[in-house]
Amino acid sequence: MAIILGDIQYGKAESRLVRITRDSPRHEIRDLNVTTALRGPFENAYLEGDQSNVLPTDTQKNTAYAFAKTKGVTSPEAFGLELARHFVHDVEPVTGARIEVEEYAWERAIVDGAEHDHTWLRTGQEVRTAAVTVDETGEYVIGGLKDLTLLKSTGSEFTGFLKDEYTTLPEETDRIMATALQAQWRFSTVDVDFEAVYPAVEALMVKHFATLHSLALQQTLFHMGKAVLEEFDFIAEVRLKAPNKHHFTYDIGRFGIENKQEVFWAADRPYGLIEAAVTRDDAPAAHSAWRASAGLA
Amino acid sequence: MAIILGDIQYGKAESRLVRITRDSPRHEIRDLNVTTALRGPFENAYLEGDQSNVLPTDTQKNTAYAFAKTKGVTSPEAFGLELARHFVHDVEPVTGARIEVEEYAWERAIVDGAEHDHTWLRTGQEVRTAAVTVDETGEYVIGGLKDLTLLKSTGSEFTGFLKDEYTTLPEETDRIMATALQAQWRFSTVDVDFEAVYPAVEALMVKHFATLHSLALQQTLFHMGKAVLEEFDFIAEVRLKAPNKHHFTYDIGRFGIENKQEVFWAADRPYGLIEAAVTRDDAPAAHSAWRASAGLA
Amino acid sequence: MAIILGDIQYGKAESRLVRITRDSPRHEIRDLNVTTALRGPFENAYLEGDQSNVLPTDTQKNTAYAFAKTKGVTSPEAFGLELARHFVHDVEPVTGARIEVEEYAWERAIVDGAEHDHTWLRTGQEVRTAAVTVDETGEYVIGGLKDLTLLKSTGSEFTGFLKDEYTTLPEETDRIMATALQAQWRFSTVDVDFEAVYPAVEALMVKHFATLHSLALQQTLFHMGKAVLEEFDFIAEVRLKAPNKHHFTYDIGRFGIENKQEVFWAADRPYGLIEAAVTRDDAPAAHSAWRASAGLA
Amino acid sequence: MAIILGDIQYGKAESRLVRITRDSPRHEIRDLNVTTALRGPFENAYLEGDQSNVLPTDTQKNTAYAFAKTKGVTSPEAFGLELARHFVHDVEPVTGARIEVEEYAWERAIVDGAEHDHTWLRTGQEVRTAAVTVDETGEYVIGGLKDLTLLKSTGSEFTGFLKDEYTTLPEETDRIMATALQAQWRFSTVDVDFEAVYPAVEALMVKHFATLHSLALQQTLFHMGKAVLEEFDFIAEVRLKAPNKHHFTYDIGRFGIENKQEVFWAADRPYGLIEAAVTRDDAPAAHSAWRASAGLA
Repeated sequence: MAIILGDIQYGKAESRLVRITRDSPRHEIRDLNVTTALRGPFENAYLEGDQSNVLPTDTQKNTAYAFAKTKGVTSPEAFGLELARHFVHDVEPVTGARIEVEEYAWERAIVDGAEHDHTWLRTGQEVRTAAVTVDETGEYVIGGLKDLTLLKSTGSEFTGFLKDEYTTLPEETDRIMATALQAQWRFSTVDVDFEAVYPAVEALMVKHFATLHSLALQQTLFHMGKAVLEEFDFIAEVRLKAPNKHHFTYDIGRFGIENKQEVFWAADRPYGLIEAAVTRDDAPAAHSAWRASAGLA
Repeated sequence: MAIILGDIQYGKAESRLVRITRDSPRHEIRDLNVTTALRGPFENAYLEGDQSNVLPTDTQKNTAYAFAKTKGVTSPEAFGLELARHFVHDVEPVTGARIEVEEYAWERAIVDGAEHDHTWLRTGQEVRTAAVTVDETGEYVIGGLKDLTLLKSTGSEFTGFLKDEYTTLPEETDRIMATALQAQWRFSTVDVDFEAVYPAVEALMVKHFATLHSLALQQTLFHMGKAVLEEFDFIAEVRLKAPNKHHFTYDIGRFGIENKQEVFWAADRPYGLIEAAVTRDDAPAAHSAWRASAGLA
Repeated sequence: MAIILGDIQYGKAESRLVRITRDSPRHEIRDLNVTTALRGPFENAYLEGDQSNVLPTDTQKNTAYAFAKTKGVTSPEAFGLELARHFVHDVEPVTGARIEVEEYAWERAIVDGAEHDHTWLRTGQEVRTAAVTVDETGEYVIGGLKDLTLLKSTGSEFTGFLKDEYTTLPEETDRIMATALQAQWRFSTVDVDFEAVYPAVEALMVKHFATLHSLALQQTLFHMGKAVLEEFDFIAEVRLKAPNKHHFTYDIGRFGIENKQEVFWAADRPYGLIEAAVTRDDAPAAHSAWRASAGLA
Repeated sequence: MAIILGDIQYGKAESRLVRITRDSPRHEIRDLNVTTALRGPFENAYLEGDQSNVLPTDTQKNTAYAFAKTKGVTSPEAFGLELARHFVHDVEPVTGARIEVEEYAWERAIVDGAEHDHTWLRTGQEVRTAAVTVDETGEYVIGGLKDLTLLKSTGSEFTGFLKDEYTTLPEETDRIMATALQAQWRFSTVDVDFEAVYPAVEALMVKHFATLHSLALQQTLFHMGKAVLEEFDFIAEVRLKAPNKHHFTYDIGRFGIENKQEVFWAADRPYGLIEAAVTRDDAPAAHSAWRASAGLA
């Protein structure tokens, strides 16, 4: 029996990077949070503290800022690909790179009815995400979003569920359904117009959340994912994670006041948590696409 | 010398209340966070634990949910007034009530180009606030917002400042200016169309943030407040608090790459923090309008 | 009628400063979050953008780090006094300074039963606070703490309260009482052994929270404050703010299981919020001691 | 080509559960955050909204609170095992259960030098974690902790690293090393005295953090994990994730003040992020032990 090193990776997390394009009076902005991680033969750093193969995390950060100028930021996915390819192809010992990017959206300030050239409001809505892996097995891109908070005030029920001795939940035929959606979609190619796909995927998911009469949040998630796969043949699978943000009808009947699904308490915790993957039966293998870390549960 | 009780108040904080109006197929939503606090002769609760004058905080919460149905939620300011008046006028020992409300905005989901009747996305942008006080001296309403995150990529400089032995900051003639604005405006009357005023005040502040060539964040704040007072004669004063969310030009010159105000590091802490009140020289007395609590610093 | 500037102040918030003393192999650590704010004749910065009286917030930050070496950090209160006096006395136009400090506690790592010389664990318990003001009227020091999370599993009741038509709360004769205490105490002098007073004040408050049979959180707060004033004649007043962190008995009687105050749901929101000031009837005037900002509600 | 459902699971997240034992005047407290997730043949809920196999998340919550009384809370690991076994063995369609528990530590209030019987202070230090899986392949328990914030003020260097064109980091032979450690250890059996193991594992990790002269955070992590495996033969592997919480020496040399590693700026973001798994070469297969979710990256 020997004690050995298992999975490893290291990098620089959460470099907050803002890129302004100012080639004309109408500026553009991209606002990113960039995390880089490298994989490769770094065992001696762990075993003995030998850094000769270790590119500092500070260097990884410098590279991100340098590339923001030299490569530009056309999309979080493309920016991640530039960085990942660089680390794997240009830095000798590195065999794999994982780049995760969050993007925060801004909308132009409206001044006297017109969009302003160089002033924005952060929209604060969902965060766009990208996770890019480049290694010996290939190149993998996952698009995504998180914190997309959706609510429908009718068109949702929850009935006919399994009951055991600890079940007290009443059946509900008309309830609020709300979630803060996290979704990721794996591309089967890197040759994609990422900027066009993102809003289209989001719109599809919002549409199906709104229009499907929901018998369960599980059902809604599956059909949101299915709609995306039906529309985009270069998306191999969609994974979704959705807290059921409970809105409980407040009991004002105690005061002789009828509450016809009009007044709710929005609870914080606990919350239901529903997860699903939706995929194609002929999807290409994911390899390291979904591997985010060295493995904590 | 005696040890005595000073300022006191107690209440229920952060009741998350969602009100759906469903009188027609096109539902409406108001999403509030309601905090109530009562003032009055509660000394014996503090001194001896005698609760005979103490309306439970649980009752205050119940009242908020009941009023959401019986009074409706036409604006956070009006809802706060209903609650404050009730506590002061209808509950015997209470002499003052402070109601603070946060409102979270939702926008309708767009499905196939049209607004959906009963599905929304939380916008996540700024939070609207209201602070209402009713007591023996009168009725006071303060409108406001917080976390309005604004950024301009040019039109801001910082030069000519005072220098001492610890000053190392270089002068900047073209910088990013960004903030997460908190603002509150005190009305000189409660007879206001709060729903019309709120977006107009916000638009004015955004406009002046965008269009004033800024020599300092201080200057921008003053002129944002001044514009609001010039437009609305029933607003007595505006108070503003603005973190200077520093965006530092990243030094990629070390790699032979020119950075013409295009690549920035968005820092978290520390940050500048600029505050200002803008008022009329004939503003009515504020009395208890700004008193939020029993006084921690 | 004219629109005029009201209260103003500006500064640098949240400079995270760690001071290591390494004069011997047994190092010492102080871990601070320092916020400075200046008051004075800065009107022209607001009105016209003229910075000639404005000491940059970057300079204020530099000063804090310089003083950490040249003055040392013997206590957050004393460190705040050094900074405040410097800004008011040494920087020409400044007439007032407000320094707020948070301190995070560390305890020495235990290795083979002994305290380690240069390794610590952050305790994570309450945060110590200090708020220092120096201006034309004098010098003021407020000590404090926040996020001191206390819980007692018996010795607390809530009965005999006022009831109205919205009251549904049952009386409770044995409940959990829990809070995350925020307290601040104003010194009537700056000539204090702050390092000795802090743990003594905290211990007193913990003792009275534990030992007073509580008829209401209000009562507990008053007696915690009173005990501090009785012990320390150089403390003029104590202000306390305490969320009532509700622990609701979970209804497992529905499953035929008796719950004798043993199983609770710890709720997040809403929560009661109780505030009190306890003072001496001959306390010296507070002047600007409690003034934290330019005045948002 | 068909679109199919992939991995699924659903459950109730973050039930905040406090268990008081009051069999004697000296009470005991356990403070948990319980998350349950079920796996099994729930496809029809996703595909068609058929809930007949779906035990409501509300029922899962009820079960946790009921078990807190009927089974007790002897450790988060044992409590997780009770719940997981129940869902898999007693609820017909369920084939797998994942229970994740966080535990918050409390220490007894000290009153006049003695521990109090029924009053505690939340320690606020690290959070203890447990992740339990029961399914067709067996029973798996992972112990752990997170947010253990450690700092050493000397005994750490970083030199001899790989350099490329974007490298500007100077070598450091004496620096602060700090982290907020997350660690998880997989047991090779469920027959463990979890309450005895937890503090022993933590103490070992703290000891090696303190005493190893560190050439890199990577090296420190490996040796912390190795020490745990050497001590406990029933632990199969340890996984560690450690942000490098940078403490930058503040440049006060600009003011003619020497800084001999005494004054630091504690930065928030970005931060290095180092990960490692340490394992035995004959460790039993992990099967589903590390599978936390249905798979987002």
